[in-house]
Amino acid sequence: MESNLSHEECGEHSIEGKSHHSEKVKKNLAARLNRIEGQIRGIKGMIEKDTYCDDVITQIAATQSALNSVAKILLEGHMKNCVLERINEGDTKVLEEVLVTIDKLMRK
Amino acid sequence: MESNLSHEECGEHSIEGKSHHSEKVKKNLAARLNRIEGQIRGIKGMIEKDTYCDDVITQIAATQSALNSVAKILLEGHMKNCVLERINEGDTKVLEEVLVTIDKLMRK
Amino acid sequence: MESNLSHEECGEHSIEGKSHHSEKVKKNLAARLNRIEGQIRGIKGMIEKDTYCDDVITQIAATQSALNSVAKILLEGHMKNCVLERINEGDTKVLEEVLVTIDKLMRK
Amino acid sequence: MESNLSHEECGEHSIEGKSHHSEKVKKNLAARLNRIEGQIRGIKGMIEKDTYCDDVITQIAATQSALNSVAKILLEGHMKNCVLERINEGDTKVLEEVLVTIDKLMRK
Repeated sequence: MESNLSHEECGEHSIEGKSHHSEKVKKNLAARLNRIEGQIRGIKGMIEKDTYCDDVITQIAATQSALNSVAKILLEGHMKNCVLERINEGDTKVLEEVLVTIDKLMRK
Repeated sequence: MESNLSHEECGEHSIEGKSHHSEKVKKNLAARLNRIEGQIRGIKGMIEKDTYCDDVITQIAATQSALNSVAKILLEGHMKNCVLERINEGDTKVLEEVLVTIDKLMRK
Repeated sequence: MESNLSHEECGEHSIEGKSHHSEKVKKNLAARLNRIEGQIRGIKGMIEKDTYCDDVITQIAATQSALNSVAKILLEGHMKNCVLERINEGDTKVLEEVLVTIDKLMRK
Repeated sequence: MESNLSHEECGEHSIEGKSHHSEKVKKNLAARLNRIEGQIRGIKGMIEKDTYCDDVITQIAATQSALNSVAKILLEGHMKNCVLERINEGDTKVLEEVLVTIDKLMRK
């Protein structure tokens, strides 16, 4: 049986209290993204001030690692919640979707 | 002969008007980093609103690609300016440094 | 309920005719890996003959892309067969495992 | 002044005894590539025997890391020999070339 769950509905589940990510995880992610935003602003400033390029690139690599960590935390939550839920509802199309997403992360 | 150029001095060259990056490149980089900052803020909002995780991860992958482009533009400028300059001054230590930097970019 | 499926048993399923990969996929993968083996031997020969390093590195990048494609085909088969099967049997531990694997592929 | 060095001539230098890579480095690279060739054959066998996909993917990730190490050793040799040499001869076009190569390695 095909599930009638659409992306939107899966999102709505969260609003109904069945969040993909616990409040703790969301706080963790928000803190990480705030730090990353600061890193991006820092890089902008470094370029403005003609900081040695090597140091700027090192800072970019660090920011990319930080973004990668966010992606991994999201993917973990996605797999353990939405993917699992939809498979249990008989909707295997979710696997195609997550494979496309993983491909994007391997590519980046 | 070993060059006496330190990172700082190489940075100072820029201040003296011999910038690693032309004003045009710096404007391009600033515009890209502003867009990336907006993307990070967008990702934060998406997580806050429990957007479908797959879409958030896709947005993260796009941001990583955008950061990669910034890194490549910087590396190009670094190689064609600072690395070239220091090699011409007999300072081959710059190659060790840039190899470490490239390694970080391959790793991210 | 926890599944009693171990890695080995999951492998045995295949032998009993419930292969993770169809014969067609296995032939495709074998052909790809034969080509990759040839590429590796080619790289060895290039280094032996002092081929221009740039060309050797280009060939290595092509081989890495080819290996990446093999990894993606395997991951797709794994997700659509073993992961799906074990989730349907109530064994969600498989998700932890596949996340570790995906992490390795994002890192490589 | 533009250098008359073509790729081929740069390769020929090596044959005339001015190898990009010392015999020691070449032996190291050959040993690494032999191991990688064995890994590829191992992966082929694993797929033939329906080994648990997770384990096969882990082995592929290990092989990709090993190939990455070879690429880094080659890039280091390339930068410290051919790139340096051509810059010293006034041929800065080599920088464009090596940037394209680095891009391929960042992409793989």
